[in-house]
Amino acid sequence: MRLRVDLLPHGHYPDVVLVIDTLRATTTAVTYLERGADALLLTSTPEVALGLKGEGFLLGGERGGLPIPGFDFGNSPVEAQPQNFTGKTVVMNTTNGTGASHVAAQTGKHVFLAALTNAHAAARRARAQATEEVAIVCAGTDERVGLEDVYTAGVIAEYLLALGEFSIDDGARIALTVRRNSGNPLEALSSSVHGARLSNLGLGEDVRYAAELSTSTVVPTLVQGDDVPEGTLRFIAG
Amino acid sequence: MRLRVDLLPHGHYPDVVLVIDTLRATTTAVTYLERGADALLLTSTPEVALGLKGEGFLLGGERGGLPIPGFDFGNSPVEAQPQNFTGKTVVMNTTNGTGASHVAAQTGKHVFLAALTNAHAAARRARAQATEEVAIVCAGTDERVGLEDVYTAGVIAEYLLALGEFSIDDGARIALTVRRNSGNPLEALSSSVHGARLSNLGLGEDVRYAAELSTSTVVPTLVQGDDVPEGTLRFIAG
Repeated sequence: MRLRVDLLPHGHYPDVVLVIDTLRATTTAVTYLERGADALLLTSTPEVALGLKGEGFLLGGERGGLPIPGFDFGNSPVEAQPQNFTGKTVVMNTTNGTGASHVAAQTGKHVFLAALTNAHAAARRARAQATEEVAIVCAGTDERVGLEDVYTAGVIAEYLLALGEFSIDDGARIALTVRRNSGNPLEALSSSVHGARLSNLGLGEDVRYAAELSTSTVVPTLVQGDDVPEGTLRFIAG
Repeated sequence: MRLRVDLLPHGHYPDVVLVIDTLRATTTAVTYLERGADALLLTSTPEVALGLKGEGFLLGGERGGLPIPGFDFGNSPVEAQPQNFTGKTVVMNTTNGTGASHVAAQTGKHVFLAALTNAHAAARRARAQATEEVAIVCAGTDERVGLEDVYTAGVIAEYLLALGEFSIDDGARIALTVRRNSGNPLEALSSSVHGARLSNLGLGEDVRYAAELSTSTVVPTLVQGDDVPEGTLRFIAG
């Protein structure tokens, strides 16, 4: 079995792909589903999301870390955590994570959203589905590598290596080195450029929430099908 | 002063850019100039290089690690090292390094080629030219991050931090972590996917050569000007 970590989205993904955007899209996605949402629709653009408004969907997302005008929610797991989304579909669009998911879905068949909060469950799901290769793709921030995503990839890579034999690529090697030498999750996330920016925006609680390790067993799972609105990807709890 | 490390070419470079392709383009480029070459012409494609043949230029390059048909040399520092290139211009085209140089030159003004062999000299040149930001760009291998380039970026980042105050981005943080936790240069290069592939091709001597640290003070330096053949970048010893 091979393990590949893309420090930025690249394309040409194998059967099994884990998409990471720890701060904050994939962390928030896990929370929406944990709090009862039926499904998530990740859109290619904010406009696609806004076009779905009024059809019984809730809209969540951000640009530059801040909520998008016309959206119901930002991209905050702390904001989502106390709510009850039972029976609701949440339409998400964010700066990096939703785009990375669309790249992954172009060729990946089993596409999962992963964060620190569901890291162990995500690794087990990926291992269970994989036949030849697991790819982990880090969303990054504005096309730049994000320490928080590489650290999370290293955590998941460690879990995978504990679950079986893998040959690893240079991206995985780098992620494992970062994971083992950047302190605990909160220290790693806080030292990242994106973590510092969120704290400056008053969103430090989201950073602390995103640094909780393997507290959820929910793994957002792509459902392929024709009944999905154009420009969206449908994820359900897995 | 800011320090930015791109683990893959990205674009939008500031004044000062160091391009790294340790295995082997930038290492070989340093060797050509050390061995007396007047200049290097880095071409955008092998065809541009072949079009210059017969005009008194020597051609060096590779695809898949092997020499290109019609070229005079491969992309091997060990092959170049015993030769005398005095009075010659070497036209280079390689899989990753020459392309990364063209990306860097689109916006960068002071563009230098860096490797482990000239790491300290390259850091000093970059520091001397920079006013606001130094960018280090890793060429990678076939659009994938290469451990050998990230390690080299970490070495140069360490030198830069010893030369003055820098605020660093996540890429630099990752490169420094990799540099400090991947063993000595030969261990790091040997453990990279590209290093292993070169050894399998019988090019292990090139890997050993490329792992020598700061043995050269030659820094290939981009010379902007109109008298350069179309599709090429001209570098001279600096």
